This record gives sequence, structure tokens and C-alpha cells, in this order.
Amino acid sequence: MFEKYFSTRILSTPSSFIREILKVTQKPEIISFAGGLPNPVSFPQEELKVSMNRIAEKFGDKIYQYSTTMGLDSLREFIVERYKKLWSMDIDINNVIITTGSQQALDLMGKVFLNENDKVLVEKPSYLGLLQAFCLYKANFVQTKLNDDGLDIDELKNTIKTHKPKLAYLIPNFQNPTGLTYSAQNRKEVFEVIKDEDLILIQDDPYGELRFEQSERLPYIGLNQSDKNIYLGSFSKIVTPGMRLGYIIANKEIIRMIETAKQASDLHSNIFGQYLIADYLQNNDLDKHIEKIKKLYKTQSSAMVEAMKTYFPKNIKFTIPKGGMFSWATLEQGKSSVDLFNCAIKKNVAFVPGDPFYVKEKNVNTLRLNYTNADCATIKEGIKRLSEAMSEV
Amino acid sequence: MFEKYFSTRILSTPSSFIREILKVTQKPEIISFAGGLPNPVSFPQEELKVSMNRIAEKFGDKIYQYSTTMGLDSLREFIVERYKKLWSMDIDINNVIITTGSQQALDLMGKVFLNENDKVLVEKPSYLGLLQAFCLYKANFVQTKLNDDGLDIDELKNTIKTHKPKLAYLIPNFQNPTGLTYSAQNRKEVFEVIKDEDLILIQDDPYGELRFEQSERLPYIGLNQSDKNIYLGSFSKIVTPGMRLGYIIANKEIIRMIETAKQASDLHSNIFGQYLIADYLQNNDLDKHIEKIKKLYKTQSSAMVEAMKTYFPKNIKFTIPKGGMFSWATLEQGKSSVDLFNCAIKKNVAFVPGDPFYVKEKNVNTLRLNYTNADCATIKEGIKRLSEAMSEV
Repeated sequence: MFEKYFSTRILSTPSSFIREILKVTQKPEIISFAGGLPNPVSFPQEELKVSMNRIAEKFGDKIYQYSTTMGLDSLREFIVERYKKLWSMDIDINNVIITTGSQQALDLMGKVFLNENDKVLVEKPSYLGLLQAFCLYKANFVQTKLNDDGLDIDELKNTIKTHKPKLAYLIPNFQNPTGLTYSAQNRKEVFEVIKDEDLILIQDDPYGELRFEQSERLPYIGLNQSDKNIYLGSFSKIVTPGMRLGYIIANKEIIRMIETAKQASDLHSNIFGQYLIADYLQNNDLDKHIEKIKKLYKTQSSAMVEAMKTYFPKNIKFTIPKGGMFSWATLEQGKSSVDLFNCAIKKNVAFVPGDPFYVKEKNVNTLRLNYTNADCATIKEGIKRLSEAMSEV
Repeated sequence: MFEKYFSTRILSTPSSFIREILKVTQKPEIISFAGGLPNPVSFPQEELKVSMNRIAEKFGDKIYQYSTTMGLDSLREFIVERYKKLWSMDIDINNVIITTGSQQALDLMGKVFLNENDKVLVEKPSYLGLLQAFCLYKANFVQTKLNDDGLDIDELKNTIKTHKPKLAYLIPNFQNPTGLTYSAQNRKEVFEVIKDEDLILIQDDPYGELRFEQSERLPYIGLNQSDKNIYLGSFSKIVTPGMRLGYIIANKEIIRMIETAKQASDLHSNIFGQYLIADYLQNNDLDKHIEKIKKLYKTQSSAMVEAMKTYFPKNIKFTIPKGGMFSWATLEQGKSSVDLFNCAIKKNVAFVPGDPFYVKEKNVNTLRLNYTNADCATIKEGIKRLSEAMSEV
């Protein structure tokens, strides 16, 4: 009865697909590879309990009062120091704004940059949360092929020439949904293609810290070579997602616009959580904590890969993750992962069919598998059940 | 250098005015009536410390994990029970969604309802956070005169007839910025005017609980008589604003759309904060706590009113608050409150000039005064300084 009141943007935004999936997968008998939940071991619960009592003593009513839109100085300072150390970035706290999770960073990118029908270059497939966020700003998406080592350079050149996108949104490390990582060489080639274009490059990096297969970190695309680079980061996968704390690093002129947009969106992010995480980071060794997470995820990833090698029918392809939280499987051409989902759910195993990661394609033959939120025996059993479903569809 | 990339919506959104004011007013020598900060006494710090340790014991990793977009069931149940008790509303938790502060509720209203140029009826003056939020969705505002007892009914009728607004946004209790409250009679008349119109009515009520001058609560406009009524509430003024927790109560079909918009905006609100506030509310007497806040605000409001009566030049009008956090002063016709601000700041006293609360008018003769965040002696001294500035401008 309210349809005539709703905005065209909300009526054209997809949502029910994933929501329905998550509803189904919450039944206790289901082994779910559908979510994107970090393993609870990645939450330093004891240390956070110490920190929350300490900030209550130390800062009193400040942890409960209104605060600034830009975010807590000490938390932004930590981010500045970390990115200086890791990437020699020439930034200060006025290049950093705290967001209510990375998802809000996506919403703010839409608010600040997108006019209706503006072209946005995204990977094919891309993160569904981005597609959903930008859909609300009526973005015109152009998807560019993602190969095992990064973007397909020829297709990228063509896409840019044909469409002249205003924004590009890329996830170079352990991409969601595919788990793929751009090679050092591919990063250089991508930057060569885009560097002289009128293009803002957003690099979303929630998983970069979770590289468990080799120690070398790969630099961002065009690192320290472009004022049109925007970096998104998050504490969700390395400390806690429940606090909803992410951040944006960008040129100060851009940050000032984002600040205006954020002020109108939620005034500021939860300040208690900002004090809490800042205190935790100041009093603990984050890298040591991350090592623990990586060790576990490597074990879980290996369990899934081994089980897929053992049980999957031979015509099923899948990525072997070097970090992050996901693998990505491809069925035989012509098969639909939605059909597979409907069969798998009867066998009490779930995943996310590929459809919501594409802009146009429906009934695709790809699917996302998360391995971080189940123990190895459960992962093995889940993949076994999924394999049975695969041979029936 | 980035102007060509920015969206037209962000380029047309005002922000610097208030931001500049708040920068100036943060100097320690300034007595500031400019902010809208609750008094820290309204944060039940000891009780919240007990609650945070209890939820850490009781819920373990759940307080740090991703959660649902709709919000924590137990918190939504508390809201349902309170609105049932106070207002006999026929609602359940699926009529309630938790937001990242009331400001996010405003952003979500824009996302869900507004197409470019849609007409929105607001009070004159109206809350600047709403004007800013809806500006990002390119709303076409129509402002309707606010009298001492509520909306001017004749002007309301004309405005609706002429403009046929899609939304109306009203703050019937202790309005921000004026501190005015609609009378019971005015509420009835407003509902008579709008009830058969194609109009969604949003009632924002952050201050309703803070009625310190009479005990009788006045019912919402069209309470329990319209499915097109949307109610916004917040824990910011009665427990803590730093947690950024507000809520929307509406018809379920509307809530489902808001859920989609919120999912794209920040996935969900800080879940730790939701567990914390829910635990606090379950284990403490909120009404008793609110009594304490009201007692203090009554004292502070009286101090400001007495000082204004004593020191203000006789041609200055001001509202006498019966609740909430603000008074509103009107200079002689033709005077500008921005000029007054520039003079006052030299005397180390600050307030918010009326301009940002209006859609079109500039250099208005009105100003907002907050009394909740200074002690009575400071309020008296600040009003004295402001009075001196008034006689000079």
C-alpha cells in the first residue's frame, strides 16, 4: 500500500536474495558457508574487557558524550602510524576519517561522488555490499573481468575507453567474493592504464592483513603516486566487526566532503567503541594478534581446499585462497548455482550463489564459500554434503 | 582540484557554518550555548560499567560479532513495551528498527522516500540536521510557520493545498531549535488537516521524555490513527548519545524498505552498544533516571530564563521552555543574529544563529540557546555577556 511513496532508488535496490538465504542458513542443523563472519577467536575478548574498564576510569563521561564527525584523534593517529610504517604514506590525521564500518564508507563514497547514472567500474564479480550501496545512488555499473592474477588488462582498457567511468572500486587483496589477489605485476599494469584518466580509484581492503600463505605484502595500486586514490580499511576482520569501525584514507579535500556527508548520515561513529579499540591497540600487540587469526584461517582454508580436492566432482573449479575468508567455486558451464543452492539446502549445507555479485547476469554457475566460521571437521562434512548436491544438479 | 568529481548533492549541502561555529566555541574561555550536548549527569556511568562487565560475561563473543540489520531483539522488545505502556500502540518488534542515532533515521527516511525535488513540509524553523540530511536527497522543502502552540493551521492548509508534500517532518515536543511544544488542541487540528492527504508524517521525538514543567504527556499527532505515521526515538538524551542508538517505529512494509536501506548504509548499528543499553534498561529504572535529568534541566532552564529576564534588553523575546534542551530568542526586526554572534564571540559567549534552521532566509533575527551543558552560575554569566553584546549590535 506504500509503493507510491517509496523512492525509485529503494524500489530498484536488491536485498531479499541474501536476506532470504541468511534466514534459511540460521537453522542449527545447517552447515553454513554462506556468511562472511570472522571466527570469534579473532575478537580479543579478555583484552577488550580490560580496555573497557580502563577507558571508563580514564575518560569518564567522554566515552558516552557526543563527539566529532571525523572520529577520535588517537584512533586516527594509530591508523596514520600504521600506514606510514607499512606503506610510507605521507599522511596525517586530517587524511583519515572514521566510518561506521566499511559499509558506511561505501555509502559515503556514493553520497560524495555519484550523480544519477554516473559510471562506476567494478570487478566481475564484485562485492555485493558495494553494488547495493551504489545502487541507492543510481550508479551505472560497468563490470570488468577478474582473472586469477587480477584485472584483465585488455578488457580494462576497452572498458575505460568506452565508458569513461568516474569511479573504480577494486578489492586487490583476497577479493570478496572470489578470494583472488592481484599480482604485483597486474597492479602496476592497472595503474598504467588508469593513471592519466579522470578517475577516482577506491581500493577496499578489509582482508589485506589476513595473508596466511606468503609473508610479502603487495603494495596498493598506484601507492603514493596519485591524489585520486582512496583507501578503505576496517577493524572488523582483525579486532571486532560488532563495533562497526572502519576508516577512509584520502586527500584532505575529499575528506572534507566526506565529513559533510557523514555528519548528515550519523553525526559520528560510536565513540565508546572508538575509545575501546584505540585503547586496545595502544596496549596490545596487534600484529601478534593477527598472527593468531592467520594461523587459524590457514588451517580452516586448508581443510576446505583438501575436502574440495577430495570430494568435489572433477569438473568443478575453485580458487585456492592465500588469505582472507573466501573461496569461489565454478560449476560446469550452463549449470546454475541457485539450483545447486536449492538442492544443497535440503542436505543441510549452504553457501551464497554467485548472482548477487553480478550486475546483470542471473543464474550464474559460480558460488562463494566462507571457511572462517566453522571447525575443520564441520568444514569437511559440509563440503562432502555439497559435493553430493553437485553430482545431483 | 576535485570539484569535477563531486556529486551535485554534496556540493549543494551546507555544512561549514555550524562546523566553523563549533570550532570557535571549543576554546576554553568561551561560554557556549551553541552545542546540543546533554549534561553528563544524564549518562548513568556506574550502572553502564556494571552492565558492560555483565554482558561480556553473559554473551561472550556475540557482543563483538556481526549482527542483524534490524537490531537486537531485546532492545526492540523494550521499545515495544514502553510505547505500548505509554501510548497503547499496537506494535511488535517487526515495527521497530534500531538506527545509528536519530541522525541515521533521517538519512534512511531520505533514502527510502525521496526522489529528487520531492516536496517535504518542515517547521519554520526546523532541525538543521534534517535539512542537511534531506538536502543530500535533493528534497524541495516547504517551511510552515511555527507558533507558540504549534503549527499555524491556516498556513498549513495553504501549504498542503499548494505544494502537496510527500513527507512532513515535525518535532512536536520541545522542538529543536525553538523549544516549543504543540498543544493538545493543535495536534488534533494538524491531524485533521493532513489525515486524508497522501502524506507520510514523520514525528521526531528526541526530547519528549524531558518534560520538566508539567507531568502530562501529550499524545503524538494522529496517534494510533494512521499507518502513515512514522515515529523516531533516541537513547541519546536519556542514556548516552555516544553509543549512537536511535530507532524508527513504523508500519512493517515501511520498516522492510528501511531495513534494505540500512543494510546498504552500515549493515547494522554497533551491537556491543545495543547489548549494553538493553542490559542497562532491563536492570535499572529508566523513569527514575529520567527524573534526575529533568530535575537538573529544570534548574538550568530556570537559571537561563531568570538571567534573560534580568539582563536581556526589553525588546528581546525568548521562549520559556517546558522541557527539552533549548530556548530561542528573537531580536528586534531587521537585526541579524550573525552580527550578534560576531560581537558575542569577542565577549567569549557563543550560540547558534538562526540561519541554518531556515531553508531560504539569511541573516535572520533569531538564535538558539542551549542550557543543558553549563552550571547555573556559568549560564548567568554567559547571558550577562550576551546581553551586553545585544545592546551593542
